[in-house]
Amino acid sequence: MIKQYYMPTQIIMGEDCVQSSNKVFSEMGKKALIVTGKNSARLNGSLDDIIKVLSSNGQEWALFDKIMSNPTIECVYEGAAFAKTENVDFIIAIGGGSPMDAAKAINLLACQDIPEDKLFNGQYSEEILSMILVPTTAGTGSEVTPYAVLTNNRAQTKTSIASHILFPKVAILDAKYMENLPKEITVNTAIDALSHSIEGMLSLRANPITDSIALDSIRRISRCFESLKTGELTREQRFELLYASTLAGMVIANTKTTAVHSMGYSLTYFHDIDHGRANGLLLGEFLKYVEKSCPDRVSEILSAMGLSTVNEFITLLDELLGERENLTDEQIEKYVSITAKSSNIKNSLVTPDTEDLVQIYKSSMNK
Amino acid sequence: MIKQYYMPTQIIMGEDCVQSSNKVFSEMGKKALIVTGKNSARLNGSLDDIIKVLSSNGQEWALFDKIMSNPTIECVYEGAAFAKTENVDFIIAIGGGSPMDAAKAINLLACQDIPEDKLFNGQYSEEILSMILVPTTAGTGSEVTPYAVLTNNRAQTKTSIASHILFPKVAILDAKYMENLPKEITVNTAIDALSHSIEGMLSLRANPITDSIALDSIRRISRCFESLKTGELTREQRFELLYASTLAGMVIANTKTTAVHSMGYSLTYFHDIDHGRANGLLLGEFLKYVEKSCPDRVSEILSAMGLSTVNEFITLLDELLGERENLTDEQIEKYVSITAKSSNIKNSLVTPDTEDLVQIYKSSMNK
Repeated sequence: MIKQYYMPTQIIMGEDCVQSSNKVFSEMGKKALIVTGKNSARLNGSLDDIIKVLSSNGQEWALFDKIMSNPTIECVYEGAAFAKTENVDFIIAIGGGSPMDAAKAINLLACQDIPEDKLFNGQYSEEILSMILVPTTAGTGSEVTPYAVLTNNRAQTKTSIASHILFPKVAILDAKYMENLPKEITVNTAIDALSHSIEGMLSLRANPITDSIALDSIRRISRCFESLKTGELTREQRFELLYASTLAGMVIANTKTTAVHSMGYSLTYFHDIDHGRANGLLLGEFLKYVEKSCPDRVSEILSAMGLSTVNEFITLLDELLGERENLTDEQIEKYVSITAKSSNIKNSLVTPDTEDLVQIYKSSMNK
Repeated sequence: MIKQYYMPTQIIMGEDCVQSSNKVFSEMGKKALIVTGKNSARLNGSLDDIIKVLSSNGQEWALFDKIMSNPTIECVYEGAAFAKTENVDFIIAIGGGSPMDAAKAINLLACQDIPEDKLFNGQYSEEILSMILVPTTAGTGSEVTPYAVLTNNRAQTKTSIASHILFPKVAILDAKYMENLPKEITVNTAIDALSHSIEGMLSLRANPITDSIALDSIRRISRCFESLKTGELTREQRFELLYASTLAGMVIANTKTTAVHSMGYSLTYFHDIDHGRANGLLLGEFLKYVEKSCPDRVSEILSAMGLSTVNEFITLLDELLGERENLTDEQIEKYVSITAKSSNIKNSLVTPDTEDLVQIYKSSMNK
């Protein structure tokens, strides 16, 4: 397999960098579609900052603030119709993974005529609007990836649209919008980012460049473990987690994710377990599984966290995640059959078969 | 200052990756201009590999193999005229920094009508041909930077053309072409890459992403120090140095270089001292100079190399560089006056004044 690295998004970072990026916004076009959720972008000040920049630039905008957690296909078709009606020139997304991923899908559907049954087939033309993404959680890394993950009721899981045209033009990183994030979201998103970097290290597509970025991201997140336990983070730590999650995004933009994500999607789809938490629940046992064939690789990951054994890592995750949800044998069987169809399964250094998947679910959830 | 990260070049890496990238070549157009030097690309097999891929794709090519070390402005105008005559669709450069930088300048001049006195002014349109760069030394990082450094006789130094349009479309990294590089070139180019990463850490434009990449690059190079002393490198170490030099290129693509490069250009221009060596001669004393104001930053760099003091680093460089060239007071005065005009001087965390520059030259060269 040829090893590749590609990440063409321009990253702008630092305190108040939305305000100091007015030229970046002004070069994008006359009218923006702002894609976000109902509340958070209003509460954390990001929407206000962006609207001020657009106003001072004399740019127009239309607001689509209907993105829910784990956005649906219906929602992005609705957003695309709105974008067409409003005749926008570019797209700004503000929020966590849900608004950012939804914005990418809305963009694709506003520019290209794609029926729902062909939405995930990867056969797209090059037409797309430029995007500026402003993450307000430190987890998804969507601001630097070519993926849009949507809830796919037909397949009863979450499915990715993946295309190089979905790389945003610009990602703007200001951790001040994360100042008041609740502990639970902070922890779950940090675990999501950690999972991206760890899965990137365990991917067949890993290469020396993604390894370098992944290990640094893992180190940055692990330096915040103690504060994550209490939920008391300094502004500096918020920046560390934000950079770490963007670095982790740069990793999976190239390595894709692995079985952990595929398995976690069932936990989110059927049990409404937060995406980051779902990854965290499965990550330890997946590491144990890979360790049997690739002990050195797992040891490299553990050592970046200052840990010696996978059990130490699981203990740490237990402290962050609290009590685990239980699954019945029937549920596990169902989720394994869904997971086994996912393409991400084959990205792992070791490909788990259905028995392995059953075992990982069981050991993870029914301890 | 807003901190930024941008590097849109696709990197393909691994053994025999030229051969396995025929699709990448075929998508670039009908006819290539191959830019290289007189000999090395023929001797190390890279030219042959590329021509085979082009032939099997049914693509045409024209060869411009007149690039000398530290290419001149005349040389790139000649190459541009040749590119226009041959009516090429894309450009392939093979070699060290000289052919790669020259290819970028040739590309610019083939697409845009720029008189010599406006060559370095940064005012270019967006017109450019796509480029594939194949480094055959592990030092310059040009395969992932937006810079083309040329010998500028008018300014009696080397000067950079810098523009985002000069980012290559693709960089192809195969260390097998470095198998028979002489010890001196291996050492000098490794020091060049090390200098890029260290200068990137000492740049005002450094940011958490470039720091992450720079530190990993420094670690990779320092793991090869002992083998660099003997000149006996395994294929794996060659890859390590190649990746490290590309990582270092990703750093300076964002941070630019600092006073070390500006000062080194005089050593190359007036004394024909190899570019990497020139940086190595100055790097230790520059670190000492910055350490006075930013001890923590310098300590972070030293610790990535497993060293405790700048003097240990200078001892190590001495082992790699051998006897240092001497400069007269008049020469130093002249080079300081040239260096002081360079824009890179102001990139450093601490900006050296002319007295500082005199001191750094003296301590570096007349030990």
